[in-house]
Amino acid sequence: MSNPELTLLPSERLAEFSRRVFEHFGIPADDAALASEVLAASDIRGIDSHGVARLHAYFEMLTAGRINPCPQLTILRESPSTATVDGDNGLGLVVGPKANEIAMSKAEDAGTGWVSVSNTNHYGIAGYYVLKALEKDLIGWSMTNTTKLVAPLWGTERKLGTNPIAIAFPGKEEPPIVIDMASCSAAYGKIEIALRKGAEIPRGWAIDGQGQDTLDPGEMIEEGALLPLGSDRERGGHKGYGLAIMVDVLSCVLSGANWGPFAPPFALRQEIPDKQVGKGIGHFFGAMRIDAFIDPDEFKSQIDAYRREMQSSHPSPGTDGPLIPGDPELEAEKIRSKEGIPLLPAVVEDLRDISKHTGVPFD
Amino acid sequence: MSNPELTLLPSERLAEFSRRVFEHFGIPADDAALASEVLAASDIRGIDSHGVARLHAYFEMLTAGRINPCPQLTILRESPSTATVDGDNGLGLVVGPKANEIAMSKAEDAGTGWVSVSNTNHYGIAGYYVLKALEKDLIGWSMTNTTKLVAPLWGTERKLGTNPIAIAFPGKEEPPIVIDMASCSAAYGKIEIALRKGAEIPRGWAIDGQGQDTLDPGEMIEEGALLPLGSDRERGGHKGYGLAIMVDVLSCVLSGANWGPFAPPFALRQEIPDKQVGKGIGHFFGAMRIDAFIDPDEFKSQIDAYRREMQSSHPSPGTDGPLIPGDPELEAEKIRSKEGIPLLPAVVEDLRDISKHTGVPFD
Repeated sequence: MSNPELTLLPSERLAEFSRRVFEHFGIPADDAALASEVLAASDIRGIDSHGVARLHAYFEMLTAGRINPCPQLTILRESPSTATVDGDNGLGLVVGPKANEIAMSKAEDAGTGWVSVSNTNHYGIAGYYVLKALEKDLIGWSMTNTTKLVAPLWGTERKLGTNPIAIAFPGKEEPPIVIDMASCSAAYGKIEIALRKGAEIPRGWAIDGQGQDTLDPGEMIEEGALLPLGSDRERGGHKGYGLAIMVDVLSCVLSGANWGPFAPPFALRQEIPDKQVGKGIGHFFGAMRIDAFIDPDEFKSQIDAYRREMQSSHPSPGTDGPLIPGDPELEAEKIRSKEGIPLLPAVVEDLRDISKHTGVPFD
Repeated sequence: MSNPELTLLPSERLAEFSRRVFEHFGIPADDAALASEVLAASDIRGIDSHGVARLHAYFEMLTAGRINPCPQLTILRESPSTATVDGDNGLGLVVGPKANEIAMSKAEDAGTGWVSVSNTNHYGIAGYYVLKALEKDLIGWSMTNTTKLVAPLWGTERKLGTNPIAIAFPGKEEPPIVIDMASCSAAYGKIEIALRKGAEIPRGWAIDGQGQDTLDPGEMIEEGALLPLGSDRERGGHKGYGLAIMVDVLSCVLSGANWGPFAPPFALRQEIPDKQVGKGIGHFFGAMRIDAFIDPDEFKSQIDAYRREMQSSHPSPGTDGPLIPGDPELEAEKIRSKEGIPLLPAVVEDLRDISKHTGVPFD
């Protein structure tokens, strides 16, 4: 936190600000609290790209009337272990947690619950939803499609989102294993950072508009695309492409949302696709009751042993050895809950702009 | 098929041979037919590593009494949408299909079915199981752990299997999308091929015994490890590592099987781990009724559109454009069902050896 450019603010204060901003747009109090909780979960876990840094984009979409502040969720179809939900074009930060609740409640009776959601918008970090499942001793799954940024392997155009997958497993005495990963090689945010620094990007992250590998972040941003996880055919890029399809189909084709390049944009400045093949974007949630498979205590003890076994590895040169998925975020949480959330000047400026337009006090 | 070293044999004849070999060991007729069907599915789809090329390894394990020829599957725990199955140390080629049936039958009533399996052995190609689900208009999932070969990112030792994930989505007029992928960067078979050719392997496939990147296939085989999908931290190697953990936990920790480095070996020549943390290896199967989410006809039409959209991409230089997962295997099936299965001399020799020991005629 030695960067003098960063402003440190307590997470609670930021959550309070975003809650009041959401309420300003007529979002019901409970929903506004829920949405700000999702954003705060991102900030406290160190995923700066998905927290209050995005509030301005939500603010713009709400101002433009592009998001419904008072969505009524409808269950379009259901079975003992499944439901398809229409999110009524609400904030993903509200629709997502409610659909996740449906999955968890299905699991209570049927052992597992699986919910595919259409007509929704960006839902924050995928990891938030699986952490909620952990609170109820459930193995949670969470996926969503996103605005197109990624090329299918051997294609030159953006046709897929960064389509993340999250899943979490509780430990007994140790922290949970929390997997939360996009299905592309590198995050778009890293390309933007390289551009600002005037730095090259590593090979395997991106292609230019002609489908050639590029190390120039500007070429990717202008008319190129991100590469799927695995980067090229030789190193398994077809696998990352397959994962992106899996997330897309479960989230969108199964729910009736816009898949692939037809996903509506997250932010106002992004272009709206000419064609629609469904409603809004899509999410997919799962919840599995551990005791529907095995004694939960036994399961958690083994997860502790699993963690220790991976950590017992001899470290590769120049590293401290394998990390456990979710631990870096937990570490960030420990620091940030004490020291506050570090905000870049541009983010502070955005929040002040929201304050000016909504009258919700920021400073 | 111009390689004069290859012997071409009809798939049916190979399936008949393996069926009779399995029966030779006292495997009941239905089970022997099932097991040979799984092997044949691999050969016909062009995945040579998992078909009759592996029969000798099964033969050795059965000869040594390491696999139970007459397993009685037990459901250890269940709920409307879940079951945990003990495979009684049977062939994975028998236990897998039966556990997959349980998942599919659960889906009929509960909308989805999810089965975690312990005390089992190598189950062939993950894709076989999701193709069976497609026959019933179900979205199938299939995962398994395997003998250790892969290092966790930033570790130097083999602690994880190549842990594959398969999932398939049916089309209406077009073939299905069939995703079947290991969670490591490259298959072990490719390392062996490079060694035989005296060729280097690409960067990002493997590390040596000290955890250093290596281009020498011998170094990987001797005491190195494969790298997870994504290869290194910069290109998302932590994501492939996360996927491998996901597969391992769902297949093994949830069922009570041996996870991570404790997975018992697939073949007789491989070392048995000192310690056991469960029974056998583990699988995980899922089946989702499409009509529990959406009109199946609508779903399939969209899958057709999805395929066409990806195929409409402008091709990257030097390629014919994006492939659809499952299409290369379908192409192999078309060719091989006419021309036969090409067998390497070493495989033919193995099959003759089995014939000699079992009395089942091969030539």
